[in-house]
Amino acid sequence: MTETIDDFFAVIPAGGIGSRLWPLSRAEAPKFLHDLTGSGVSLLRETWDRLLPLTGADRISVVTGVAHGPAVEKTLPDIPADNVFHEIDPRDSSAAIGLAAAVLLRRHPDVIIGSFAADHVIQRQRAFEFAVRQAVAVAREGYICTIGITPSEPSVGFGYIQTGGELDVAGAPMASTVQRFVEKPDLDTARAYFADRSFLWNAGMFISRADVLLDELKANEPELHAGLTEIAAAWDTEARDEVLGRVWPSLKKIAIDYAVAEPAAEKGRLAVVPGQFDWDDVGDFASLRKLVADGRRHEVSILGENRNVIADESAGLVVSQTDRVIAVVGLDDIIVVDTADALLVTNSEHAQRVKSVVGTLHARGRDSVL
Amino acid sequence: MTETIDDFFAVIPAGGIGSRLWPLSRAEAPKFLHDLTGSGVSLLRETWDRLLPLTGADRISVVTGVAHGPAVEKTLPDIPADNVFHEIDPRDSSAAIGLAAAVLLRRHPDVIIGSFAADHVIQRQRAFEFAVRQAVAVAREGYICTIGITPSEPSVGFGYIQTGGELDVAGAPMASTVQRFVEKPDLDTARAYFADRSFLWNAGMFISRADVLLDELKANEPELHAGLTEIAAAWDTEARDEVLGRVWPSLKKIAIDYAVAEPAAEKGRLAVVPGQFDWDDVGDFASLRKLVADGRRHEVSILGENRNVIADESAGLVVSQTDRVIAVVGLDDIIVVDTADALLVTNSEHAQRVKSVVGTLHARGRDSVL
Repeated sequence: MTETIDDFFAVIPAGGIGSRLWPLSRAEAPKFLHDLTGSGVSLLRETWDRLLPLTGADRISVVTGVAHGPAVEKTLPDIPADNVFHEIDPRDSSAAIGLAAAVLLRRHPDVIIGSFAADHVIQRQRAFEFAVRQAVAVAREGYICTIGITPSEPSVGFGYIQTGGELDVAGAPMASTVQRFVEKPDLDTARAYFADRSFLWNAGMFISRADVLLDELKANEPELHAGLTEIAAAWDTEARDEVLGRVWPSLKKIAIDYAVAEPAAEKGRLAVVPGQFDWDDVGDFASLRKLVADGRRHEVSILGENRNVIADESAGLVVSQTDRVIAVVGLDDIIVVDTADALLVTNSEHAQRVKSVVGTLHARGRDSVL
Repeated sequence: MTETIDDFFAVIPAGGIGSRLWPLSRAEAPKFLHDLTGSGVSLLRETWDRLLPLTGADRISVVTGVAHGPAVEKTLPDIPADNVFHEIDPRDSSAAIGLAAAVLLRRHPDVIIGSFAADHVIQRQRAFEFAVRQAVAVAREGYICTIGITPSEPSVGFGYIQTGGELDVAGAPMASTVQRFVEKPDLDTARAYFADRSFLWNAGMFISRADVLLDELKANEPELHAGLTEIAAAWDTEARDEVLGRVWPSLKKIAIDYAVAEPAAEKGRLAVVPGQFDWDDVGDFASLRKLVADGRRHEVSILGENRNVIADESAGLVVSQTDRVIAVVGLDDIIVVDTADALLVTNSEHAQRVKSVVGTLHARGRDSVL
């Protein structure tokens, strides 16, 4: 049993519906509340369990929508009520993480925070912990530190982080500066990055002193910073609801990559530690298929308890939430998602298009199945 | 309004589960009880309606399994009870049609019978009637006459009938002798047949004097003929159930093509009239897809009332028997059959393999969904 890190607080933004995983993921039961790995617990719970050895149960906070508060508290019975931050509406990652940073900074002046998505899948716990401990050491020196994932393939689905020179920080032997952030590349570029080895996937993990993060936000998005500061000042007082209700809806929606990480990289204030663990953001059913298949590409993988799935000369993924018989015949890359009130049939190549179905259903007024 | 044919009796064998159309077609609700054309009535009812102008309601008989008797009588409220022949178990077409022929011959000594499958789709009623009237005229001369379908494509899914010399029969200007029967050909052969134009599809329609049919059966399958004769003698008496129960299970299972038509062709006693109408045996979901698509090959066709089907960049067939939302994304030849307790996903190319799923389900003891 290794020790927790005294001045470190994890922040888990648990928002996002995961439209590309519809009809498995729904507004009322988003991706982070689902067990996508067959582990028996939800992705949020897996995230909590993964962070616990680093923080203990008292220093993990979750930022989530008001509607999901009860589900989060049920999933994480040990979370202190003060550590659950309710968003009255989703305003992207800068507001979510910035809110937690601002409130936690008032409560713990020297706190280092790390943000970890609620709905990613990570395997190899020791490697994960090693990366986070290094990142905290780097953050303690005043850097904003990200954990970049060592690519396992030339993916076009992720942004990349190009590492720069080595950093000399005790306890962080693998740390480097960040040379630049790059958006999702085309396949040729991705292949070049993959061959290069200095490019890592951007997994959206940022570890930083709360004051450093907020200073960077203030430099780039002063209005957003001012709003968050006002909310944070009122948070642990009776004025919280009034201020939140007035200020929150006015906050700019912007990803933390743009509001904090990229500008910090330009100033040489962004560092990176390579994460040499398996990481998957399970962004769509193609990704889920790979995860569930676990290398068995020529079979139909099943997510769910349904023993009535019959696959004949087929390969792909069946997600089953009913006890209906499901027969898949002669399809070599098929994705079937069978739920009580909605059925999706697609393939890996077109898995990204599922989001458009959600748009169509919304336009048709069928929000009851979204 | 044209006149019915006084000495003509239609026989509709309504058996067969249609395993290749599972889970739409079930043991308890076989293909012939379904509306596969969107007409609002079942295929059996369409068959009845098609024959009615030729026979009237008193001269159409149906041979069906005991279990389907009530459904048949509900579908055809005008059918005289005496014209429904119940099979105690399915024994193929020679027994089914032979039973009707033998019983009808005792009731109507000069009767001409014509057999028409309960679960085929035919369009162009006038052309159909013209073909049947010609076939009856030919049958009256002592021939066994089939109606061969003018091919619309080089199909490998059907047997072929090669026409021979013209027959000089009044009222049957298109009639020929049959040169030979051929089993389902390979694609090259099918293409040659299609180019040749003397080859017609075997649609299993046979029109003949009942005594001529039975004589041919007697010559080729004397035991089967003897059994049917014994049953027919008892049919309209109190002994029916006893004789049927004793003799029927011993009858040889053989298709009428082999027991009657092919031997008759060899003897020059088989004639053919070309059927210049649209005919489809709807043998599998690929065939059903074509039928429902009606030329619109680049869309997702829907069989069922479901207005919640969303097709995005897809083409194929969705059969919907529930009110669930069904989304099909990025699949250019997909077949989805969604029923309350079973779901099938396949494509046109593999539609024939659906039968094996039924076998697998049976082997797993899941007959409740078959």
